[in-house]
Amino acid sequence: MHQTAAKTAAALSPLSIIQGQSLFAAMDDRLQEAFAQASQIQQLQKGAVLFLQDDPAEWFYVIISGWVKLFTETLDGNEAVIDMLSAGHMLGDSAILEDGIHTFGAATVEPVTLLRVPCNLLKSAIDRDHTVALAMLRSLSRHRKRQTREIESLTLQNASQRIGCFMLRLCHPGQAEPIVLTLPYDKSLIAARLGMKSETFSRALNKLRSETSIVIKGTVVTIPNLEDLSGYVCSACSSEFPCADLG
Amino acid sequence: MHQTAAKTAAALSPLSIIQGQSLFAAMDDRLQEAFAQASQIQQLQKGAVLFLQDDPAEWFYVIISGWVKLFTETLDGNEAVIDMLSAGHMLGDSAILEDGIHTFGAATVEPVTLLRVPCNLLKSAIDRDHTVALAMLRSLSRHRKRQTREIESLTLQNASQRIGCFMLRLCHPGQAEPIVLTLPYDKSLIAARLGMKSETFSRALNKLRSETSIVIKGTVVTIPNLEDLSGYVCSACSSEFPCADLG
Repeated sequence: MHQTAAKTAAALSPLSIIQGQSLFAAMDDRLQEAFAQASQIQQLQKGAVLFLQDDPAEWFYVIISGWVKLFTETLDGNEAVIDMLSAGHMLGDSAILEDGIHTFGAATVEPVTLLRVPCNLLKSAIDRDHTVALAMLRSLSRHRKRQTREIESLTLQNASQRIGCFMLRLCHPGQAEPIVLTLPYDKSLIAARLGMKSETFSRALNKLRSETSIVIKGTVVTIPNLEDLSGYVCSACSSEFPCADLG
Repeated sequence: MHQTAAKTAAALSPLSIIQGQSLFAAMDDRLQEAFAQASQIQQLQKGAVLFLQDDPAEWFYVIISGWVKLFTETLDGNEAVIDMLSAGHMLGDSAILEDGIHTFGAATVEPVTLLRVPCNLLKSAIDRDHTVALAMLRSLSRHRKRQTREIESLTLQNASQRIGCFMLRLCHPGQAEPIVLTLPYDKSLIAARLGMKSETFSRALNKLRSETSIVIKGTVVTIPNLEDLSGYVCSACSSEFPCADLG
């Protein structure tokens, strides 16, 4: 899968990636080209650090393929995984609104292809161009909604429901049952992403199994009945499956 | 205290409240006056609903005094308290970036004085005026940081640390010890705000007492040693006391 992704990435130009991002869609051709010319496609191995919390922000990134972890580090050395992002997502761009300082770190959790774009170019485009400022507002607003959903989930869903929600968000309504899906990254990362210790994750996964008849073998999850799962998960959430933010 | 606040509010004009908000500071005098003329000061009792999730957004609000709860409601009828806001905070303004729909509900938890401002006025100001769009970007960015901190805390801090963090954020560095403070709203709301059931809150509060020597009588908290408390709380956080976002 990574090889295919890398091939696809090689066929893509910085310009086509930029044109595919809603933040840049409102820009005129010349500005899009200026961004494309100042950007580079990068292929990184697993574990590469894009930036650390409190680093001055030189670049922001558009993910072309692979998963990137956003994290903060506590004083006693633990890591909070505050988000996991994949293809099509941007990261690091918010630093230009934070005095040019990254307020979290970012690292790859598998081989990742991305486009890196200079922060100062985006900053000056927002400062000069009203349509770009409006596009950035829409982008931040989507982000705000994503975070609100996250806070709600951490507040009200129990550990089993959070795991079920994670799986449900990988499904599409109308998919033929049983639905078979592969976990996108390893279980310890999923646990961290959902704010759980490994032991809690294992116990909660067992409970989810018994409550919803899903079957898990290694990284493959089989969901015999989507309604069983969504009934269990979405009762403790303010939105129903399919989540509106997944379009 | 509420009477004093109400008196102060009566002495305030919509214009002076608007001028005190950073979102409006970048606007020229005429625009500030247009906002002031279209706005009204409201005094509400405890339990008043400002708007519900999915309501069309007619007004947004600046809190002059008192506490307002932001919440979402789950399908099974539980409430997630996603934020608690007090004097100086704005709420509901983000709806203008969400197709004019409120993505959460808001209700007072005590007598509250606020200024209500028409959403359409802010929307057209952002659409027309670049400096207003930039001010809104800064406002959303502050909000994003607040939410990131929240997610980190829910992910990594245990229940006792979250309660301690809540208390610590009510203190100022350099305050003479022992520090005596009054909880700003009742314990069941604090529990909900911190994403805990009442039983969890009670147990966690007992643990916090034994770990940090704080004393709690009713709504009054005595903190004999700030360093004891911050040592216990901030070890599981990426920032140190005093939190940068409290300026």
